[in-house]
Amino acid sequence: MERNESETLSMSAAPHGGESLVEQPRPGGAVPALDRWLVERILAAVGNPPVRFILWDGQEVAATREAAVARILVRDRGALLKLAANPNFQFGELYSAGRISLKGDLVAFLEAVYRAQSRMQVGEWAQKFAAWLNRPRGNSLAGSRDNIHHHYDIGNDFYRLWLDQRMLYTCAYYPSREASLEQAQVAKMDHVCRKLRLKPGETVVEAGCGWGALALHMARCYGVTVKAYNISGEQLAYARERARLEGMEGRVEYVEGDYREIRGRYDAFASVGMLEHVGVGHYRELGAVIDGCLKENGRGLIHSVGRNSPAPMHPWIERRIFPGAYPPSLGEMAGIFEPRGFSILDVENLRLHYAKTLEHWLERFEAAAERVARMFDDAFVRAWRLYLAGSLAAFAVGDLQLFQVVFARSDDNNIPWTRDWLYPEAGAHGKL
Amino acid sequence: MERNESETLSMSAAPHGGESLVEQPRPGGAVPALDRWLVERILAAVGNPPVRFILWDGQEVAATREAAVARILVRDRGALLKLAANPNFQFGELYSAGRISLKGDLVAFLEAVYRAQSRMQVGEWAQKFAAWLNRPRGNSLAGSRDNIHHHYDIGNDFYRLWLDQRMLYTCAYYPSREASLEQAQVAKMDHVCRKLRLKPGETVVEAGCGWGALALHMARCYGVTVKAYNISGEQLAYARERARLEGMEGRVEYVEGDYREIRGRYDAFASVGMLEHVGVGHYRELGAVIDGCLKENGRGLIHSVGRNSPAPMHPWIERRIFPGAYPPSLGEMAGIFEPRGFSILDVENLRLHYAKTLEHWLERFEAAAERVARMFDDAFVRAWRLYLAGSLAAFAVGDLQLFQVVFARSDDNNIPWTRDWLYPEAGAHGKL
Repeated sequence: MERNESETLSMSAAPHGGESLVEQPRPGGAVPALDRWLVERILAAVGNPPVRFILWDGQEVAATREAAVARILVRDRGALLKLAANPNFQFGELYSAGRISLKGDLVAFLEAVYRAQSRMQVGEWAQKFAAWLNRPRGNSLAGSRDNIHHHYDIGNDFYRLWLDQRMLYTCAYYPSREASLEQAQVAKMDHVCRKLRLKPGETVVEAGCGWGALALHMARCYGVTVKAYNISGEQLAYARERARLEGMEGRVEYVEGDYREIRGRYDAFASVGMLEHVGVGHYRELGAVIDGCLKENGRGLIHSVGRNSPAPMHPWIERRIFPGAYPPSLGEMAGIFEPRGFSILDVENLRLHYAKTLEHWLERFEAAAERVARMFDDAFVRAWRLYLAGSLAAFAVGDLQLFQVVFARSDDNNIPWTRDWLYPEAGAHGKL
Repeated sequence: MERNESETLSMSAAPHGGESLVEQPRPGGAVPALDRWLVERILAAVGNPPVRFILWDGQEVAATREAAVARILVRDRGALLKLAANPNFQFGELYSAGRISLKGDLVAFLEAVYRAQSRMQVGEWAQKFAAWLNRPRGNSLAGSRDNIHHHYDIGNDFYRLWLDQRMLYTCAYYPSREASLEQAQVAKMDHVCRKLRLKPGETVVEAGCGWGALALHMARCYGVTVKAYNISGEQLAYARERARLEGMEGRVEYVEGDYREIRGRYDAFASVGMLEHVGVGHYRELGAVIDGCLKENGRGLIHSVGRNSPAPMHPWIERRIFPGAYPPSLGEMAGIFEPRGFSILDVENLRLHYAKTLEHWLERFEAAAERVARMFDDAFVRAWRLYLAGSLAAFAVGDLQLFQVVFARSDDNNIPWTRDWLYPEAGAHGKL
């Protein structure tokens, strides 16, 4: 085992900016006190998960005697110092840069770390300080455009490599655990459309439409007319081209605009995977937008990543992957609905469906890793691997949730009597 | 029409404490400026609903030219003055005392008033002042006992007159709108048990068990053992007797105790219609109690009257019917779950089911009104009529909600994959 790890270490220890790889292996020797102290500090800061560190000289350090789920290979003392200074942020930086790597299953390792962190007792002030330190960037009109551009405009060809064929970049709904990603994304769109009780001839406004698949599905399968807003130029170009090819231009209009720029009145408001980019400080504004654009008997659905309790966004994900993003708790989401008196009719938590979706995405991403590396570089591949694996782990251990919230106006009595109509096949086929 | 109303007025104008009925009718004459001003003030304070006032002298005053849904008969100027001073509270007082009465449908009248009130623009500070003025009584351990005694210990014989045969005093679940109250209360218990995924041999703790029907149903139909807490002596006596008669004493234990006195660890936590009596200030405490009593894979369900946005309790209902009660918004309910990191899995809003339940209760109550009057007096009948009709109206117009919230621990992956299993008959029989 020791042998193999050292081999792995030296095999992948490419030059990376001239930092110290000068330390000589000291097999059997003592790890210097400073290094040991740094490793212990890092492990303590994340709740002492069952992982081992292997340092540049082959020395191993662990915090617990539990069997390690993975081994973290640290290339140089500089990396160890950075990791000790800000482990949550620097892990992503150093992993992407190749200065730390992992021996073992990345998802299992991240799950172990998240579990350990969630068991930690963190004082209220320490939490507040961390929240302030890692506060997300603003989501003003201009800020949102920058933030969205950063993530969604890195190339449709890249996303095509690992998303489903319709390019849905949000949690799928798996009627059964064995469903394919393709099936589950269609089932998710149907689940959303059923919850919205769309009827032919109605109008829908979509806030944040990605590559446009849901709007097209609504128009094609439910006979509605959709106005779909988005501020990602690449996504809009793709969506418009698809609507043209499918001859749906008269039924689906893709508008370059932020949710704050929505105009008109509609029978339904849908937003799938946009709320994460709105920011809690703008929820009241979002509620006002919905209030303004929803007809008297209008229905609304917001589908968003969330939390069980308010917590700061993961600092590395917020910095490198999703600037300005924040997954809210249900209590925070209430800030959209309560000031306008909207009635929350139904909340469904699809957390495990997002873990499954990410499992599929990660699998496809890994299969395309070489092509991604050619499109970008190895650091990009590692960063996205970490982001996808980290998200999968967070949903799997319950750090992240996926809430689908259905709402209507408070005085609307034209609401479903029960929810059995949502499950037309439940009785016919038993538990799917 | 005018004739009939005057007849009604004089027919029912029984002596009621010597206040001024001295005014002479002035048919065709002008309403004195003060009286007209008072009526206008009252109507404006509740958003100018389409109702007319008929004063002690037969004079009519209305705020709008809309067709009136009902006519309010005011017996004396003193009543009008009181109503003008604090309409929301005094309407109940004066109606119970027989100093104001109603010509028209009481529920339709209350619906019109609630609708008009909900359209009013009330300033933030006026709202805060009203909330402070009408703040509910405290729910300390001793306070809760007083508050619960006030409502639930007024006599099992009374409740037996208008509740279903199993004595469930919470929102029923109507599989179809045509279901009977009896069927709907059983369906509600099954809905709750299914959502909790009860398995034979498991243990359940119930916080606030009423007359004990749900605990018995769980034990009898789902094979679990239940410990049910309650602080209403009359209800406990009834529940224990029933468990004895049904030979369920070994499976269901009724404990005299508040939710704060729950001991032990259980597979499921259920609370149906108790949260309304907890008070927002105690939600964190309730969350801690649940955290302490739920096993690792435990499931929880809280069923409670709620609101779309935080709002003060109706002052008359709080004073005369439900001291200490407060229906929370979902955002406020989050204060139970978020501090302990519970994961909200499912929220269902059953508002219209509570309107239907109250329709059935009110119908039975009216049929038993004479017996109730013999048990208590006419003022009691009028007060309870107003409370039941007012609650019905509040659910019907969307002023009140009924939330069923299902939750589990954040790291519990043994949660349902979808919700179709909740609706085993949906496909077999189509929309019920």
